[in-house]
Amino acid sequence: MNAPLPRVSEGLVLPQPYLLFLGDTTEASFAKTAFGLAHWAPEQCVGEMALPGAKVSTGLAKITPAQARDAGAQSLVVGVANQGGVLGEGWIEALVEALDAGLHLISGLHVRLSSVPALVEAAKRNNRRLIDIRTPPSSLPVGTGRKRSGKRLLTVGTDCALGKKYTALALHRAFLARGLDADFRATGQTGIMIAGGGIPMDAVVSDFEAGAAEVLSPDAPPQHWDVIEGQGSIFNPSYAAVSLGLLHGSQPDVFVVCHDPTRKTILGLDGFDLPTIEEVVEMSIRLGSRTNPAIRCGGVSLNTSSLTAGEAHALLADEAARLGMPVADPVRGGAAFEALADACLA
Amino acid sequence: MNAPLPRVSEGLVLPQPYLLFLGDTTEASFAKTAFGLAHWAPEQCVGEMALPGAKVSTGLAKITPAQARDAGAQSLVVGVANQGGVLGEGWIEALVEALDAGLHLISGLHVRLSSVPALVEAAKRNNRRLIDIRTPPSSLPVGTGRKRSGKRLLTVGTDCALGKKYTALALHRAFLARGLDADFRATGQTGIMIAGGGIPMDAVVSDFEAGAAEVLSPDAPPQHWDVIEGQGSIFNPSYAAVSLGLLHGSQPDVFVVCHDPTRKTILGLDGFDLPTIEEVVEMSIRLGSRTNPAIRCGGVSLNTSSLTAGEAHALLADEAARLGMPVADPVRGGAAFEALADACLA
Repeated sequence: MNAPLPRVSEGLVLPQPYLLFLGDTTEASFAKTAFGLAHWAPEQCVGEMALPGAKVSTGLAKITPAQARDAGAQSLVVGVANQGGVLGEGWIEALVEALDAGLHLISGLHVRLSSVPALVEAAKRNNRRLIDIRTPPSSLPVGTGRKRSGKRLLTVGTDCALGKKYTALALHRAFLARGLDADFRATGQTGIMIAGGGIPMDAVVSDFEAGAAEVLSPDAPPQHWDVIEGQGSIFNPSYAAVSLGLLHGSQPDVFVVCHDPTRKTILGLDGFDLPTIEEVVEMSIRLGSRTNPAIRCGGVSLNTSSLTAGEAHALLADEAARLGMPVADPVRGGAAFEALADACLA
Repeated sequence: MNAPLPRVSEGLVLPQPYLLFLGDTTEASFAKTAFGLAHWAPEQCVGEMALPGAKVSTGLAKITPAQARDAGAQSLVVGVANQGGVLGEGWIEALVEALDAGLHLISGLHVRLSSVPALVEAAKRNNRRLIDIRTPPSSLPVGTGRKRSGKRLLTVGTDCALGKKYTALALHRAFLARGLDADFRATGQTGIMIAGGGIPMDAVVSDFEAGAAEVLSPDAPPQHWDVIEGQGSIFNPSYAAVSLGLLHGSQPDVFVVCHDPTRKTILGLDGFDLPTIEEVVEMSIRLGSRTNPAIRCGGVSLNTSSLTAGEAHALLADEAARLGMPVADPVRGGAAFEALADACLA
């Protein structure tokens, strides 16, 4: 789907296809890795596996590790992330079962698979690999702010986990469909799993955050587009550092604001209202103009997954009129989304 | 000088007094560690050592490692930092000489002393320690934004390396002089060396940046003040991620803007004008109000070190009138600085 540079680590090749592991997750927002893989790389997913108590599903067949192995799966992918990126206590037994069934393990969590003795032992016993993809390149530079050649689009958001990766992937696909030279640049675990390369921006040491974003989208031909997956939100009290470093280092020409109209407060935090779309537009321009004075908003991506089609289309039209810019849901596509893609390129 | 929590690492005690190492540094801004130690912990500094080509001095006696050891020094402190925090190639021989003279090595650079084989070997040979203080605690949490008890002051800046640590130390001292219960909270290498504890914020993984700042200034009695050393600038294209995570996690009630009136562009970067004081005030309130809606600016700290006393006092008065708030240089102290401290507490 995109040129494989920079690779997560030299020579990384993820063993595919996958069995998607959902743990005991009850909130869909925390299962975005599994949902992203099922949507953007369905040919690499043979099924899903969840623990008792889980309340989310990708819609794929519910199978055991042994059944997955029989169906050709090479790896179990931990498809969920909780706050802090830790491994759930109750997950270990299931992950050992997967190793015993002959699957490798792939994880993008902060906590390393290799830090769990039971997993190390089972991997060794079965000659399987523990692949932690949330490991940034070892020699990242400090950001310089130097203007790079080529064009860049960054998805930003009113919060985390509401469509920034999906929007970037859809816009990348729309750019390719228009015959443009474009790369999707992955910044998080799922995006890296889909793309086969990228930099896990939230695992980068703060001092090098902007520099990592500069490495992620290097100099390119003048008409080339990098479509960069955003992270977090400048208004998210937990993760704003990641978002600002990514914004500065990406020096985007265009950004698209991603928003979930049904979400009222920051995910996982009490007492923090979501910022408005207008606040995110204004603040992204204010802060982003530091490294690209020509930065502009290309439009808005609304996650209308919890609305009916009729409600969604009415809302998209209303918001486009209210904000005076293209507003689309990339999942629903259609003329509104094509207009958003055109506006980004205008 | 302050309560020793949180320690850089459990049981860390820096062997004192120090010999200050200046490398071959030609710009004073990159020698802030040495200058800070000479000023705030003079009783712990027996002298300085520089390489040919160096153009900075703390004013302490220029001595060799052997002379320093004879004078009672226990450690050589790498008192300089270049961009990226690497060890200069030409420094290694001098550092080996220090180990051979019987000194431990202390460094706050990103690059670990223990990653240099020649130093590891010399340390082993002499039974001396290589102490890398830029190592954050291992289990930092994700930020929550939860309001903590007690009061907090954060120094912010128009750029890095222009007085945020100095200003915080001076205000902490002024608060103690008023009989208040207050702690200085160190966030960088020099501050940690002076205070004996703290968190090196620029070495923290981005996802935990705000969480680290929350750990650094924990719940405290209602009238207690944490005076927190700022880092970088929200307008610095290299380091803004550090600054925003620290701002959100510190949830300051009061901030003081630190500025060098003779600096026109961002340190070490071409083509980036310094923001105005007013821009920093406005943006700090905008972004800081996310975790503390009551945030306010206590005043301005001007670094007038390159001006005459007459020029400095005229500038301080002019800026106070222009901005309508207290403006002082903590190095020069006096009534202006006392007014700034009072305004922070008002």
